[in-house]
Amino acid sequence: MSESTRPRGAVGAPIPKLDAPERVTGRIRYIHEIGLPRMLHGAVLRAEVPHARIVRVDTSRALSLPGVRAVLTGADVPLVPFGHGRDNTALKADFVRCIRDEVAAVAADTEEIAREACRRIRVEYEPLPAIFDPEEAARPGALRVWPEREDNLAFNYHYDHGDVAAGEAESDAVVEGTYRLHYVTHACLGTSGIVAAFDSDGRLTLHSVTQVPFLYRRDMSRIVGVPPEHIRVIQAAIGGGFGSKLDIYPYEPIAIFLARATGRPVRILFDRGEEFRDSPTRQPAIVHLRSGARRDGTLTFRTARLLLDNGAHTSWGATTPFVMMQTFSSLYRVPHAAFDAEVVYTHNPYAGSFRGYGNLQATFPIEVQLDELAESLGIDPLELRLRNAQVPGEVTGQGLVFQSCGLAECLRTAAAASGWEEKRRAYAQAGEGPLRRGIGMASMVHTGGGAKIYHSDGCGTVLTVDDFGSVTLVTGATEIGQGSETVLAQIAAEELGIPVDRFTVVNSDTQVKPWDVGVHASRTTFIAGNAARMAANKARRKLLDAAAEQLGVPAGDLEIRDGDVVRASDGKVLTDVGRVVRKLHFATRYDVVTTTAYYEPPSAMQDPGFKGNVSPTYSFATHVVEVEVDVETGVIRPLRVTAVHDAGRVINPLGALGQVEGGVAMGLGYAMTEDLVIREGRVLNGSFRDYKLFTAPEMPEVDVRWVETADPDGPFGAKGIGEAPAICIAPAVVNAVYQATGRRFRSLPLRPERVALELARGEGEE
Amino acid sequence: MSESTRPRGAVGAPIPKLDAPERVTGRIRYIHEIGLPRMLHGAVLRAEVPHARIVRVDTSRALSLPGVRAVLTGADVPLVPFGHGRDNTALKADFVRCIRDEVAAVAADTEEIAREACRRIRVEYEPLPAIFDPEEAARPGALRVWPEREDNLAFNYHYDHGDVAAGEAESDAVVEGTYRLHYVTHACLGTSGIVAAFDSDGRLTLHSVTQVPFLYRRDMSRIVGVPPEHIRVIQAAIGGGFGSKLDIYPYEPIAIFLARATGRPVRILFDRGEEFRDSPTRQPAIVHLRSGARRDGTLTFRTARLLLDNGAHTSWGATTPFVMMQTFSSLYRVPHAAFDAEVVYTHNPYAGSFRGYGNLQATFPIEVQLDELAESLGIDPLELRLRNAQVPGEVTGQGLVFQSCGLAECLRTAAAASGWEEKRRAYAQAGEGPLRRGIGMASMVHTGGGAKIYHSDGCGTVLTVDDFGSVTLVTGATEIGQGSETVLAQIAAEELGIPVDRFTVVNSDTQVKPWDVGVHASRTTFIAGNAARMAANKARRKLLDAAAEQLGVPAGDLEIRDGDVVRASDGKVLTDVGRVVRKLHFATRYDVVTTTAYYEPPSAMQDPGFKGNVSPTYSFATHVVEVEVDVETGVIRPLRVTAVHDAGRVINPLGALGQVEGGVAMGLGYAMTEDLVIREGRVLNGSFRDYKLFTAPEMPEVDVRWVETADPDGPFGAKGIGEAPAICIAPAVVNAVYQATGRRFRSLPLRPERVALELARGEGEE
Repeated sequence: MSESTRPRGAVGAPIPKLDAPERVTGRIRYIHEIGLPRMLHGAVLRAEVPHARIVRVDTSRALSLPGVRAVLTGADVPLVPFGHGRDNTALKADFVRCIRDEVAAVAADTEEIAREACRRIRVEYEPLPAIFDPEEAARPGALRVWPEREDNLAFNYHYDHGDVAAGEAESDAVVEGTYRLHYVTHACLGTSGIVAAFDSDGRLTLHSVTQVPFLYRRDMSRIVGVPPEHIRVIQAAIGGGFGSKLDIYPYEPIAIFLARATGRPVRILFDRGEEFRDSPTRQPAIVHLRSGARRDGTLTFRTARLLLDNGAHTSWGATTPFVMMQTFSSLYRVPHAAFDAEVVYTHNPYAGSFRGYGNLQATFPIEVQLDELAESLGIDPLELRLRNAQVPGEVTGQGLVFQSCGLAECLRTAAAASGWEEKRRAYAQAGEGPLRRGIGMASMVHTGGGAKIYHSDGCGTVLTVDDFGSVTLVTGATEIGQGSETVLAQIAAEELGIPVDRFTVVNSDTQVKPWDVGVHASRTTFIAGNAARMAANKARRKLLDAAAEQLGVPAGDLEIRDGDVVRASDGKVLTDVGRVVRKLHFATRYDVVTTTAYYEPPSAMQDPGFKGNVSPTYSFATHVVEVEVDVETGVIRPLRVTAVHDAGRVINPLGALGQVEGGVAMGLGYAMTEDLVIREGRVLNGSFRDYKLFTAPEMPEVDVRWVETADPDGPFGAKGIGEAPAICIAPAVVNAVYQATGRRFRSLPLRPERVALELARGEGEE
Repeated sequence: MSESTRPRGAVGAPIPKLDAPERVTGRIRYIHEIGLPRMLHGAVLRAEVPHARIVRVDTSRALSLPGVRAVLTGADVPLVPFGHGRDNTALKADFVRCIRDEVAAVAADTEEIAREACRRIRVEYEPLPAIFDPEEAARPGALRVWPEREDNLAFNYHYDHGDVAAGEAESDAVVEGTYRLHYVTHACLGTSGIVAAFDSDGRLTLHSVTQVPFLYRRDMSRIVGVPPEHIRVIQAAIGGGFGSKLDIYPYEPIAIFLARATGRPVRILFDRGEEFRDSPTRQPAIVHLRSGARRDGTLTFRTARLLLDNGAHTSWGATTPFVMMQTFSSLYRVPHAAFDAEVVYTHNPYAGSFRGYGNLQATFPIEVQLDELAESLGIDPLELRLRNAQVPGEVTGQGLVFQSCGLAECLRTAAAASGWEEKRRAYAQAGEGPLRRGIGMASMVHTGGGAKIYHSDGCGTVLTVDDFGSVTLVTGATEIGQGSETVLAQIAAEELGIPVDRFTVVNSDTQVKPWDVGVHASRTTFIAGNAARMAANKARRKLLDAAAEQLGVPAGDLEIRDGDVVRASDGKVLTDVGRVVRKLHFATRYDVVTTTAYYEPPSAMQDPGFKGNVSPTYSFATHVVEVEVDVETGVIRPLRVTAVHDAGRVINPLGALGQVEGGVAMGLGYAMTEDLVIREGRVLNGSFRDYKLFTAPEMPEVDVRWVETADPDGPFGAKGIGEAPAICIAPAVVNAVYQATGRRFRSLPLRPERVALELARGEGEE
């Protein structure tokens, strides 16, 4: 990180998250600690069969249990369809279509009673045949998940630019392959939950873990029939979001219906088993990828055909092709590209959004195939990538504008820092023992300032400097643990000249905070950061004007530094901002220093062909992974990860470091250990004992480096880094394993038993 | 109330308080319901003797009680002096000077354990002589409460205008008398309490019942040594304030010291006995009043000498002469006036502020003596008052500017509505049975828009119109049950053209709300109302400009009515404000509709001679009371109260009615039943069994009428009415009792045993 590119002060300071002390001392209040007077506890009964007609629901044994206050079935609640595809309902009245489907719900005096009451509900099912294989579901005449539809196709997407046939004709090498990406889950340490409470006027307060409080309010209004202006959403502290809280899921309106039925607040909390079984997953995908290059390594074309398993209902997972196609079209310079994706209904569980949002699934085949192409051309993988890397100012075939772009510098920095050349050469001569080493790399591009999928991608801010010189920053943005509170305070602190430790960030209550579209698409630093900076700039000007009047000095001669108003020429302290505000309240002009700002990024909705600059900026990264493979046991040990990121100017190096380390761990889990095993629609390993996260003792050394491009529109040059670090680990692992073993894996995860078996059989997926 | 003077819409609508449903259903959360994780419960041990040296405090038996987490004495905490006179400390280390004095405090797992631990603390006292009679305490050489002071004089006040001697020389009649006003207490149904919690960074959150959150934060900072910017004050719902929560009292820093000592949140709640014994009282006073008039009734002069019992510490009660002198100088036109007040220390409990703030004690002697003067001149009491009533635009001898003044109209309306002339005549011929009837009147003047006792008397506002057309009004003002939330919403609703039921008022958190000096001096409707109106006006202009752009229509042709944007010429609905805001967020100009305003009233700090226009406006009232006195039992039954108020334009007739009815009940209690009996410094009747509030079944019919002057600076013409209704009941009762019995009482309350005894003895106080 170049010290010289950083402004003095708050921006660039590696400070702990503002809420870190409350989190590590256990004082922060997660949804699990939100209790209201007279609150009841809810529980949900879900389907035991993946596809069946509900013949009868007998709730009598539940209702007779002491402490039970309400039992609801699909017959008792509005069946307004919701979720991204509007094909889900809070409770199911006639049919269940996956094991997750909600059949009944109970509110009781304790959670234990509510769960016991659920166990006492007798549901008579008429089992029906079910379909679990998306390739089978995609075939004409397949069993339909929704008989009222023509077929199982939920969505399809087509994108192209250039002329693929012409590109292929120019190619000296063409490779193709099929890649299979599996189910994983967010594994949030804080399980899902909600507290719903009506007041005496029928207004509804939701203590929620949503990532999109304003959209949530709008959508929930339609589902539960409360006017949106009478819904207040208060976010509890969130123990992990990662995209899993971007949609409305049935337990949320269920809690509201239970609160309405009982006239009392109702809390529903997922236990760990529910979190595994009943949360959305990452979108599984089958990708057929074909690409070509000239002899010199210049890419000529890329075509991708994708099949996505939608499950029985449609949440955000179905929209991941939208992000995937950006990577197919624009990761490296590709003159001709085509992309087709089909999303088909099955009786499996359904996927939601998940950090990276399809980009892990898109980057994996591209970066694995790129190594194959390099091999077939006899070019070093680094060289091939550098030859096709974009430069700042480039406009891609899809119309993405890379106004700042550090991709080539990421590649070179990662190669230098990891000792790429020497190790690549050394491991090529690997010996004959069971332990083989390899080194692999992969890069990624991802939106670095949101994605304009709504007409608005903006954020409002209200900032107050009070009579003690402390600052309250009310932002529309949402904190889900990513550290946005801290980054926004740093940005405003830098602009204002007031230290970060005088800041309070308010961001959890729709009744107080201004409009924003929520936390997703790595948008908060860029968008909310710009809004915070604008509001801070207005406040600074107001303070300096007031100080100028109070001191009888031209405002242009004054600056604010460290909370003091100083003479710009020599730094002499003349007064402090608290005193300036007190004089405004008490004496001279009578005013409050409260300013507002709204920032809307200069991005665009895409056209019907999916072309257009959907984000105001893009972030880049290269990861190099060095592995040691035990070819007898199949155990892959990552030795070292070099992670080089272009996230523009880094506002908080400590927070960004945490994002990268967390993303690397998540990416290594995706590559090697995490696998949500689903058979016949059932999750078979719904516990941390059986679902293997990549944990701290297994972590390799991670060498994190920054390529600090200064984005012209980013706040102090910053771009988003929320999702980037998880995206390109898996292909780098696979590429390293290929060097170590000569096997090129095209599906994940590389669990030891599979790796050992496939190596022993002398056959990989090739 | 004249319908024609009201604007259409929200202002003037008799709507229930916004928080009424939550209050009446018991869902609102008072301080008693604020619980935090790991919270401990505090209790305070107070002095058992009114004056003593603390020889030794043995806490060992308290500390050994299981569940006790900390025991503090004066040796353990900072002894920073605080309270209005800076002569109180959280705990007392060397001496106790009144029964209330705090000697030790305990934090424990439950309130029961904490109170039991207090009982186990052994305090060894060396008893010292004490002084309880303020007249004795005022004499030279008296025992001094604070030996380090020269005498017991805590404060003295002198005010005069004109030439009293000249005034007396012009007088045809002069009357004088001594009036004694007693101790009463606020009797808040919600007892006092606090929850203090430090976070892991040492920041302090106080869940408090304070009426002045920003000043509280500043003062508390000094007492407990936490920077003010690290103190957040959140107001719980308040079950009665009436001025009792204007100062900091020792239990509040004690809770903070206990939280610091234990590292855990601590809650202290008063039980009912503590609320009676350990809360501030209304300021008791001895008033010697002398006044004169010409034969035609024109007042010539007025002199007052007051002696106030300060108790052992100095809270706001000591400052009530500041308000009293306004009434002595300016209730009716008095050309020459002089006022002297001495406030002396005793070993009694101390007084705080209390609705009316000295004005009950000032209005009582003036209005009782006015009837005596009328009698001596042979003029009807109504005529005498009308002859001396001020008119709009008048500037009083003290410099108060009555820019609106309905005093004469209040007098005439009250007389007409009560049947003054007929009844006065009828009761003059009263018969010989034990039941005698009389009718009496009294008037008052009180600040109607705050009192500039600080350099600022202003209030900030932040207002947001959101994407559903609902409005969040963040006001600096404080709601203590008086209905300000509702009134502020009505004012902003009227200005904006958006219905009140779309409003949320945010007013309970210093971290979110802008600067304000708190709820006192009947200031909120006027000052916060103007700030709300200004912010709403800015928002309206922003909405209309945006709508004009969106619709392609000049903004001047548009209006907002009932949340819709309409064509002004014919009322045709063109769009609605939610849609206008959504388009701002999503499409046209990218902005939030969040506006800020700060209103500072055009009042002035008074000069050292107490002259100057301390409030931007003044409210007036006349009360007529008709009583029936049983001369054998002494029971006085009020038959009917006619209460006529000039509070300017009435924003919410239902809320204002509640204020008047509550004030009448409080005034009748002050006149006839309430008496906090203190002997040798001890409260003898600290329970609702022994302290008699005036209750609903005893209430007479109250005929409330409005004289709706339109104040030129008030929001839609409004003035304050918070304190006015309690002020002039007592003298009206005494004047009525005089007509009924021929006895003119000069002290309160008129309890039956006393009335019967004095009437039987054939002697009153005359």
